[in-house]
Amino acid sequence: MSEHMARQFPTLDTLHAALRDLPAPEAGAVAAAQARNGQLTKPPGALGRLEDLAIWMAGWQGTDRPHVTAPQVIIFAGNHGVTARGVSAFPAAVTEQMVLNFQAGGAAINQLAKTFGARMDVHALILDRPTADFTADAAMTEDAFLDAVSTGWHAVDPQADLLVTGEMGIGNTTSAAALAHAICGGQPADWVGRGTGVDDAGLTLKAQVVAEGVARHPHCRRDGIEALRCLGGRELAAMAGAILRARHLRIPVLLDGFICTAAAACLEAAQPGALDHCLAAHVSAESGHAPLLAYLGKAPILSLNLRLGEGSGAALAIGILQGAVACHSGMATFAEAGVSGA
Amino acid sequence: MSEHMARQFPTLDTLHAALRDLPAPEAGAVAAAQARNGQLTKPPGALGRLEDLAIWMAGWQGTDRPHVTAPQVIIFAGNHGVTARGVSAFPAAVTEQMVLNFQAGGAAINQLAKTFGARMDVHALILDRPTADFTADAAMTEDAFLDAVSTGWHAVDPQADLLVTGEMGIGNTTSAAALAHAICGGQPADWVGRGTGVDDAGLTLKAQVVAEGVARHPHCRRDGIEALRCLGGRELAAMAGAILRARHLRIPVLLDGFICTAAAACLEAAQPGALDHCLAAHVSAESGHAPLLAYLGKAPILSLNLRLGEGSGAALAIGILQGAVACHSGMATFAEAGVSGA
Repeated sequence: MSEHMARQFPTLDTLHAALRDLPAPEAGAVAAAQARNGQLTKPPGALGRLEDLAIWMAGWQGTDRPHVTAPQVIIFAGNHGVTARGVSAFPAAVTEQMVLNFQAGGAAINQLAKTFGARMDVHALILDRPTADFTADAAMTEDAFLDAVSTGWHAVDPQADLLVTGEMGIGNTTSAAALAHAICGGQPADWVGRGTGVDDAGLTLKAQVVAEGVARHPHCRRDGIEALRCLGGRELAAMAGAILRARHLRIPVLLDGFICTAAAACLEAAQPGALDHCLAAHVSAESGHAPLLAYLGKAPILSLNLRLGEGSGAALAIGILQGAVACHSGMATFAEAGVSGA
Repeated sequence: MSEHMARQFPTLDTLHAALRDLPAPEAGAVAAAQARNGQLTKPPGALGRLEDLAIWMAGWQGTDRPHVTAPQVIIFAGNHGVTARGVSAFPAAVTEQMVLNFQAGGAAINQLAKTFGARMDVHALILDRPTADFTADAAMTEDAFLDAVSTGWHAVDPQADLLVTGEMGIGNTTSAAALAHAICGGQPADWVGRGTGVDDAGLTLKAQVVAEGVARHPHCRRDGIEALRCLGGRELAAMAGAILRARHLRIPVLLDGFICTAAAACLEAAQPGALDHCLAAHVSAESGHAPLLAYLGKAPILSLNLRLGEGSGAALAIGILQGAVACHSGMATFAEAGVSGA
């Protein structure tokens, strides 16, 4: 349990320090991968985005032959006090029930992790102690927040070569919408969606709750970390911690849907460039996701109308990255194959 | 070699007969898969297109638990007389060089087939005897055409549970553009693209060659099979034969890029509904592909700016289908997992 672990970040200042000290991709590996790409047996550019993805992976992995042989999927689960406002179509008890489903291997993410050969870990974050209703108080105290971030930080396998962070938390599309509204601006209605399936009245209520939450914590508009603490949830804070750890380990990250991306966006708001090691795996059907990706300047790899969370869209994109690096690292060059150039 | 095999289609009439007698998906399996989908541990519709794909697969495979455990990739290669017109950026010798690369395991499609666990077969169709320049004569005699179609027919593994047909043939984007122009109409310039990388002058030349070819064989506008014979190539005819065989075996097919789709479109032109067992795996960067898919009413699964051919885009989409059927066939139901409904 997170509260018994040594906390990686004893104070908010130490978290901010970790955000300022971020490694860059290795320029030499990028150049070597670009050179290799130009010699492979295909017309220049014919593998389209796969070429860009492989070269990008090369930079973060520090090799001209990138690989995806040890992907890790981490699911964080948390409960949200804001569910008391009636913002979800499902009861809050479903969070814990789904954690048991993850542990038993019955959820969508289990099947996808298995399909693409990913290790999968599940971290339930003190489900019996939901965060505070953010329209009334900060979702988390500083201690609770730093515990959750530290849980995410420690959850990353340093041997992983690709990371997916997923989440489960009834009510968390409302939390994500509040984060997006605080960080990107616009109107609350721009960021709320149907989540697990609320009706029109539910959508109106979600927009109202988002407006109240951001009005209650106005400093969140200027501070991504405070936004994550006051409007987020334990699973969102943990995802941010894991994504930050991956950066320090130079492990590339596939961002999942709206909730994962909202958590990640808090890091980018706090430190521009903090998500340079992250790809947008897909654009989800949750209506705030496309504008949030546009705000971050990230083009999604997949667009399949998913809106499940659990890291499912990101796990699906593991296969695309496996294909990209397999081509880049496994193909013959024109010289090796004796194929004439253009 | 195809010329020594028993020919599946001794006459054009026998090919037309095979096109009229097409099996449908199994309605009972579709209904059972839809019912199962509604009970899985996720909000209704949350897996988006993955749900549609799994249910569609169920119908063709005749089971409510579809699978992708034995995918087959078949690459057909052919040479084109129209290359004498200077329509390609690469010399015609590259077709055979790339066949050797496929056989040695060095091409992009080798890496992708391996990544997704697909069997891969390569059929080189009489490379030393290119088709005729279709601006001067029919690309193939009836005998040569029916040989090529029969080669494709026999190449399909009846035990496969998903088929990808790919191609290699210097000059074949020009052939595909001529097919698309004959079948869909519009202007030649609507259908020609840069292929392996021609410049603006090359593009203008391709449009001219396409116009000449369709004007030389005007009956192709009314007859998809004649279009394939007069304007196609051996590898395109073989892909059509394989796709038709897959239909008779009720094996779902992932269509690759512009050339594969143009070959398939000849079947649809000859018999509406002939491609009901086919999915558009991706939309390629070759400019004629998107309008050709629109003509066929098929929405691509992926859009990654590929334009390589070889079945590469379709092979990449094998992973998406593996994810879709893994979720559908492997997830727990609400009752099994003890999860509360909405």
